[in-house]
Amino acid sequence: MENHNHEANINQDYLCNGLPQVLVLEPPPVFKFHGEQLSKIFHFLKAWESPLPLHQYLTINSQSVKAVLSAGTTPITPDIIRLIPSLGIIVTTSAGLNHIDLQECRRRQISIATAGTLYSEDAADLAVGLLIDVFRKISTADRYVRRGLWASQRDYQFPLGSKLGGKQVGIVGLGSIGLNVAKRLEAFGCNILYNSRKKKPSVPYPYYPDVCDLATHCDVLIICCGLTDETHHMINKKVLLELGKEGVIINVGRGAVIDEKEMVECLLQEEIAGAGLDVFENEPNVPKELFSLENVVLSPHRAVHSEETLMALCDLVVGNFEAFFSNKPLLTPLVED
Amino acid sequence: MENHNHEANINQDYLCNGLPQVLVLEPPPVFKFHGEQLSKIFHFLKAWESPLPLHQYLTINSQSVKAVLSAGTTPITPDIIRLIPSLGIIVTTSAGLNHIDLQECRRRQISIATAGTLYSEDAADLAVGLLIDVFRKISTADRYVRRGLWASQRDYQFPLGSKLGGKQVGIVGLGSIGLNVAKRLEAFGCNILYNSRKKKPSVPYPYYPDVCDLATHCDVLIICCGLTDETHHMINKKVLLELGKEGVIINVGRGAVIDEKEMVECLLQEEIAGAGLDVFENEPNVPKELFSLENVVLSPHRAVHSEETLMALCDLVVGNFEAFFSNKPLLTPLVED
Repeated sequence: MENHNHEANINQDYLCNGLPQVLVLEPPPVFKFHGEQLSKIFHFLKAWESPLPLHQYLTINSQSVKAVLSAGTTPITPDIIRLIPSLGIIVTTSAGLNHIDLQECRRRQISIATAGTLYSEDAADLAVGLLIDVFRKISTADRYVRRGLWASQRDYQFPLGSKLGGKQVGIVGLGSIGLNVAKRLEAFGCNILYNSRKKKPSVPYPYYPDVCDLATHCDVLIICCGLTDETHHMINKKVLLELGKEGVIINVGRGAVIDEKEMVECLLQEEIAGAGLDVFENEPNVPKELFSLENVVLSPHRAVHSEETLMALCDLVVGNFEAFFSNKPLLTPLVED
Repeated sequence: MENHNHEANINQDYLCNGLPQVLVLEPPPVFKFHGEQLSKIFHFLKAWESPLPLHQYLTINSQSVKAVLSAGTTPITPDIIRLIPSLGIIVTTSAGLNHIDLQECRRRQISIATAGTLYSEDAADLAVGLLIDVFRKISTADRYVRRGLWASQRDYQFPLGSKLGGKQVGIVGLGSIGLNVAKRLEAFGCNILYNSRKKKPSVPYPYYPDVCDLATHCDVLIICCGLTDETHHMINKKVLLELGKEGVIINVGRGAVIDEKEMVECLLQEEIAGAGLDVFENEPNVPKELFSLENVVLSPHRAVHSEETLMALCDLVVGNFEAFFSNKPLLTPLVED
């Protein structure tokens, strides 16, 4: 973490014990790993440590709170926002924003700072890692060796995998993560296609405005988009049937972009070939039917978990709060289109 | 598999039941998956199906054999070669050639056909897959989710991984596999360095003639070379200590390029950070100490196991034998330098 001269330009009204007050609804990963350092810079009100229900905690403690740090799990609803009457900024450490009521924030003129594109490379790396794992059965092979089966089952032929080169890979959501996935998979000889809200003029890949049409043309779908009303359950049984029996789905976006129940059915009935999933509809609950399948790879929402990125995130969180408390432009403000 | 007009140009002397005779010492994967199709083209003598010891089997059955198909595990020693007096060609489905006594083959003017660069992309894909897995703990995370621990251990923070971008990756053996690994990892933002017998004039990456010196400058070593007298145990404790506590080793070359005992010691004593291993010194036996480590990913020598590649290999095996039996140039002859 960089050295910050924290008190120099900060409006003294916001201070508690000499430090600016920040309300935290639930512990974000950056807090767990760099909490001690952050606590030297900000005075944190830790809602989750109180035995009180959140509404009651906020009613008692949030009257003077101007800043919230969010990890992206506790929904920041109009109700919650009303209980923090002086709220001026939400800094979220999540890549997605679906947990924040943006309309209420606009109405109240609450600024939002996001993680920007900080996670894009980590998320893309994991998407490719999950894809190679499903195609080449790496986790399954690791289990096989650890159980001692390689040496004991000499006549057993471990099943073949699939080659990445030459595959048609459809990226759903060609933002910063999707573009990083595309760049990586081109180096493996994959052909990239994509779906997104709009055609991207600067991009060489074929555009499919209809995700079902994209699925028809693909061996793999990689979900890289955020969760919105439009993307909720966008990947349903119809899309998965178009992806087909040899098709693989990867999700590093948000769980509810896929209709999870229909995907599980397709996997159980072998209507698609496999899945690599970092996100789920009802985290941390994962459909138990998936636990016994050899053609899925399950990851506990960790697309953006690397030491290097969390360190950079820590700097970004500090920088955004300091900018806010000093009336300077945020480093990574939410830009709505 | 392509359609071949098999008998058209083939010297009739080599036929048995109308098909050219091919001796197979042990079942290669291509044989298990495409054996039935191949058996329509060649008459196979399957040494491993006989209860006789190999030497005795060969003495009785190999007098007229001109062609051998090898999977790369049974050593083809001068002793074995002497028992096949008419031997004219060995087609090996392995990428490595360390199982064949090349000197004896040269002396006897026995041609060798290899798998060429057929496996390079699959092997490179697996090398990158193993690297992402070790860095981002994919197999470990999959175990964690499957055991139901994500939902039950809400306060546990799954350990952070490492970011690929910006890492110094040293490739040991910059042949066809190594170059494919380099191409892929450049797309992840890794910096490529390499060691090989000679500096490659057409390659932009920094060359380190000494592997220990390479390790000093690297976060990751990826072993892509074959096994020779020079590369045997080339990666020893000294090299691993230079790689260091944060260093990761990946092996898709041959097991004995690494001194396995010293590597296991380094892993147990946390003198290196992790390993992704597709090959081992004494396959299919894997050091049991590795089974309980969370920072290793174990793969049962499957760098070249994809359906697409085995299908292409099948065509290559058929093409090389047909060329030999028709006195035409081999498709993928061994080129010695």
